Amino acid sequence: MPPVRESDPDILMASARAGDRSALARLISFVERGGPSARAVGRVSYPLGGHAYTVGITGAPGAGKSTLTNALLGEIRRGGDEVGVLAVDPSSPFTGGAILGDRVRMSDHALDAGVFIRSMATRGHLGGLTLATPEAVRVLDAAGKPWVVIETVGVGQVEVEIVGSADTTIVVVNPGWGDAVQANKAGLMEIADIFVINKADRDGASDTRRDLEQMLELSQGIATGAVWRPPIVSTVALRDEGVDELWSAVADHRAHLTATGLLEQRRVTRLTDELRHIVAARLLEQAGARTDDPEFERLRDRVLAREIDPWGAAGELLGLD
Amino acid sequence: MPPVRESDPDILMASARAGDRSALARLISFVERGGPSARAVGRVSYPLGGHAYTVGITGAPGAGKSTLTNALLGEIRRGGDEVGVLAVDPSSPFTGGAILGDRVRMSDHALDAGVFIRSMATRGHLGGLTLATPEAVRVLDAAGKPWVVIETVGVGQVEVEIVGSADTTIVVVNPGWGDAVQANKAGLMEIADIFVINKADRDGASDTRRDLEQMLELSQGIATGAVWRPPIVSTVALRDEGVDELWSAVADHRAHLTATGLLEQRRVTRLTDELRHIVAARLLEQAGARTDDPEFERLRDRVLAREIDPWGAAGELLGLD
Repeated sequence: MPPVRESDPDILMASARAGDRSALARLISFVERGGPSARAVGRVSYPLGGHAYTVGITGAPGAGKSTLTNALLGEIRRGGDEVGVLAVDPSSPFTGGAILGDRVRMSDHALDAGVFIRSMATRGHLGGLTLATPEAVRVLDAAGKPWVVIETVGVGQVEVEIVGSADTTIVVVNPGWGDAVQANKAGLMEIADIFVINKADRDGASDTRRDLEQMLELSQGIATGAVWRPPIVSTVALRDEGVDELWSAVADHRAHLTATGLLEQRRVTRLTDELRHIVAARLLEQAGARTDDPEFERLRDRVLAREIDPWGAAGELLGLD
Repeated sequence: MPPVRESDPDILMASARAGDRSALARLISFVERGGPSARAVGRVSYPLGGHAYTVGITGAPGAGKSTLTNALLGEIRRGGDEVGVLAVDPSSPFTGGAILGDRVRMSDHALDAGVFIRSMATRGHLGGLTLATPEAVRVLDAAGKPWVVIETVGVGQVEVEIVGSADTTIVVVNPGWGDAVQANKAGLMEIADIFVINKADRDGASDTRRDLEQMLELSQGIATGAVWRPPIVSTVALRDEGVDELWSAVADHRAHLTATGLLEQRRVTRLTDELRHIVAARLLEQAGARTDDPEFERLRDRVLAREIDPWGAAGELLGLD
């Protein structure tokens, strides 16, 4: 089949559901770009979805997230299910193919029609990826993928937010002094459903496990309502060691969420939160229009002359206090 | 002098300028909290400022940023100047004192009245720290600090944005395979004015230098207008090695920016950009009010029932397409 150059989201979605990968890629490109065409895709995909289970993977650069994702894809595919992967890079808008390396590392599955891998990078709008990622998940869901894996590069606020919106979130650390402590600093303790100590054949793996256990102990003391205690799984992803255990931990967590009703509860919370962000994003678009205003230039010049402070200028532009 | 419990920003600023540290801390707390009292502080500090030079320090967790900051404070204080430090942690809103460790590592200067160190963490508003940090810089500027050092934890999008808004930005990497490559992935190549290879006594330091040089080569090929080539400085911050060289590099960069007029030009660009974000933030506050609306609840429930998609619901709430 020749690549679809169609831009009608209904036709593209029908093709994607019939297995056309280029149609699927095109739908996600629309989502990534934002604006009216992204909204048109959302209208088409939303009623078709609600069936996919999402797994998030995060950790510091170099922790081995892509190798682990690659290994997890193997587990999912052994079960016969199709899977979509979003490799999300909220960093540089300038270095387009930044995470090409990650695609290469997932190349075990490059020729497998049951695996769809997609990098997503920021297009420069504020909060762009935080909103585009769940929308892209919904496209993959609507296209019939029962599993969606979200991998993020980096451990900043945006990355934690994105990957923490998965049903099951895996946080990857490595052996080494302070790595567990750094995970705590980066806010990863709050979002982790499962911890992985990858490269567990290196020195310091048992210290890292002890640090993580202590921190879990502390956080359990506070969150008395929590019944799920995140397991700590040791892996050597490059040699596929421990990956089956990790996959069982994902299954256990999913079973736990389903049995307790937490899966539905978390999805409602997430959606409410997302809806707030979307309302804000629509207002931001309007702000963009406002800053094209000649009045904006005039106020900026007054700020530069220190006649008015920046917040005062914004207030004046918008007719607020 | 007893701590000022005053909340009038004019009085607080007068005290801060007279050397009252608790008044200065209180002003920054207002800024951190956002809202009307933050705007009142901005109105007071803005006309008094415009004199401070800002230095940003970023790099992966564990790279030794705080130890380097501590060493740089020594250089600044040897010159007799006062300095303010903002240690910005855009990650977990839950673990309040997350960067306490960083303060401890800067403790060489804990008793020095010429050094004011302040941690800033997110208070949960979207884009909060991206806007609060330049405002806090302006408070320190207005209080008479000729130097402000901004250190960020982590290398995510928000951190890069915050630290990249300094006059001179220092990116810290460590020896080790791929560290330079990771810096590139995280978007740090674009914001670096100076590279530091810290812990340069470890294996792999020369490989890291070679990687950085190659990447600079490549990026220079593209950015033909650039006349500043970021120097690469090797340090062992814990033993104070290379720190004088780093400090000269900062002075060189400052001289370059001043001589070429780039300092002024970059500040205008930054301010314009900041003003756009502020306009958006004010609109966001209004969105907050909108999501308290019972109409928001009603639409959310329709989204949960998959009767309408999230973007459609936001459009309906705001009366947009």
